[in-house]
Amino acid sequence: MLALAGAPLGVRMRFLDPASDACAGDVGELVVGAYDDPECLERLAAGTDVVTFEFENVPVEAARLVSVVPKARALELGQDRLVEKELFRRLGIETAPFGTLGDVGVPALVKSRRLGYDGKGQRLIDSSCEIGDDELAEGIVPFDRELSIVAVRGCDGPTAFYPLTENEHRGGILATSRAPATGSDVLQGEAEEIARRLLDELGYVGALAVELFDVGGRLLANEFAPRVHNTGHWTIEGAVTSQFENHLRAILGAPLGATEAVGSAVLVNLVGAVPPLEDLLAVRGAHVHLYGKEPRPGRKLGHVTLVDADPVDIAAVTELAAAAWSA
Amino acid sequence: MLALAGAPLGVRMRFLDPASDACAGDVGELVVGAYDDPECLERLAAGTDVVTFEFENVPVEAARLVSVVPKARALELGQDRLVEKELFRRLGIETAPFGTLGDVGVPALVKSRRLGYDGKGQRLIDSSCEIGDDELAEGIVPFDRELSIVAVRGCDGPTAFYPLTENEHRGGILATSRAPATGSDVLQGEAEEIARRLLDELGYVGALAVELFDVGGRLLANEFAPRVHNTGHWTIEGAVTSQFENHLRAILGAPLGATEAVGSAVLVNLVGAVPPLEDLLAVRGAHVHLYGKEPRPGRKLGHVTLVDADPVDIAAVTELAAAAWSA
Repeated sequence: MLALAGAPLGVRMRFLDPASDACAGDVGELVVGAYDDPECLERLAAGTDVVTFEFENVPVEAARLVSVVPKARALELGQDRLVEKELFRRLGIETAPFGTLGDVGVPALVKSRRLGYDGKGQRLIDSSCEIGDDELAEGIVPFDRELSIVAVRGCDGPTAFYPLTENEHRGGILATSRAPATGSDVLQGEAEEIARRLLDELGYVGALAVELFDVGGRLLANEFAPRVHNTGHWTIEGAVTSQFENHLRAILGAPLGATEAVGSAVLVNLVGAVPPLEDLLAVRGAHVHLYGKEPRPGRKLGHVTLVDADPVDIAAVTELAAAAWSA
Repeated sequence: MLALAGAPLGVRMRFLDPASDACAGDVGELVVGAYDDPECLERLAAGTDVVTFEFENVPVEAARLVSVVPKARALELGQDRLVEKELFRRLGIETAPFGTLGDVGVPALVKSRRLGYDGKGQRLIDSSCEIGDDELAEGIVPFDRELSIVAVRGCDGPTAFYPLTENEHRGGILATSRAPATGSDVLQGEAEEIARRLLDELGYVGALAVELFDVGGRLLANEFAPRVHNTGHWTIEGAVTSQFENHLRAILGAPLGATEAVGSAVLVNLVGAVPPLEDLLAVRGAHVHLYGKEPRPGRKLGHVTLVDADPVDIAAVTELAAAAWSA
């Protein structure tokens, strides 16, 4: 999606991916190799204006080697849930209680500090037990809903924020996002303040997402992702400038584009299996995005966005996606 | 732009172009060779589901050889201005007077029957003179404005129409399009009827544009283009489904997407030279599309679309484009 956003701006891309069938190869030059292979990194970076990433588990040392934008420090801090939460705390950003089981009590959510995503590496604990050094305990928060905000910061500091997005997960995997989130006038300002503190602290350049819990109108930060984010995919059709174009504008030192929504967007993820394409395309206003990935249970294979759509059409897409997911 | 519309739908493309630096090579596989080179045509078509074209001067025989969709007949009829006008006449579609100089009198516009575009191959005659067999005389029409309509017909006959677009040319080259055209409620129906007759007559599948003159509220057909069209480029951001996606849906036998405008769109062509990208991106709401082509006087190098934009921002883009055009 970065490549598709860059093509009209004359931005040509080269990708590094361990998989020889990586879908990025369809829209740019593909270097196949490990993220930390120095020779591959050299081939990736040769002759480029800038190197970036859209996957937060890229090894920090590899990122440093090619001087990524945003800086590798954002990756590093985001890769360790404990460090990430401590950063939030240091910036005065409220989070769920976290620390040892002693700190948070039970029941608690025990998460691996590293390499967790889509709910992987998490378990619910309801009686005290040992947890590893590589784990972190979090108090259970009775949140009303999950929100996220995508923010983008230009290389000389200007920052733009997309409208808050309301997210529904299924089995720990994002199923649906709606933006702008309902009743978010007050929360929008709070979320922007959270994102701004983080971006400024990191000297960040590019797009970044913060996942938030709405607890009775109070926002708690859950985690941040130093990259374009699934909960911002609706911006392709639903905002004046997409998160992908704005990430590119930022890292290339160009002016940021407007981030306003152009309507009410609903994003439905296609997980595990893709419904028949004909059926999706038959839904009025459905914008289908397939990623060209092999189906696998729990894998995100694409998404569909609808803007200012009829509820009947939203329901149709949701049902097609749900049927394929559980098929 | 077809490739960029196809990528999210899982459509992978191969292109045939005589130029080894053709911009299509950035977004798909490129076969470099003459349009009528049988070996290249074979390589182009090998393993494809469908072959189409987006340039109306492709040799008809070459198009036939690879069984293009839409059928080569549409190309053939459109490549000869006299045959094209006779088709309009046969379908009861009004045109400017045409034929010999004797038929239309002077002053007249004398056009080459073949290979004319962007005003090339045209001359204004104000006294009677010889014209060649390969030329056609047209009466001068005191039109109020130039309009166009892009229509798309699916492979089993359903047809969808984009809103009428109002076009301004400069030196015979499209400079600006605005859609939906103002005051077009009545004309929309007339234009759709013109396009529908043509599409049905041709058994057409895909996107097609008809250029029209508005003469005091009466529509005269000027010419048709059997392909996605410059006056429909605004549909990328300005309509629910772009002309590019709908062309692909049509030729692949998928349901057509909705063609309604999502706002008021203005398209500004970048001709001859591209203004500084930074300046274009600094204009609020500017969607920049560069084609990756070498600058050349009179060559279309890109376009910018704005939707529901502030007149100040539209003026800014128009001025940047005009300054680069004449620089």
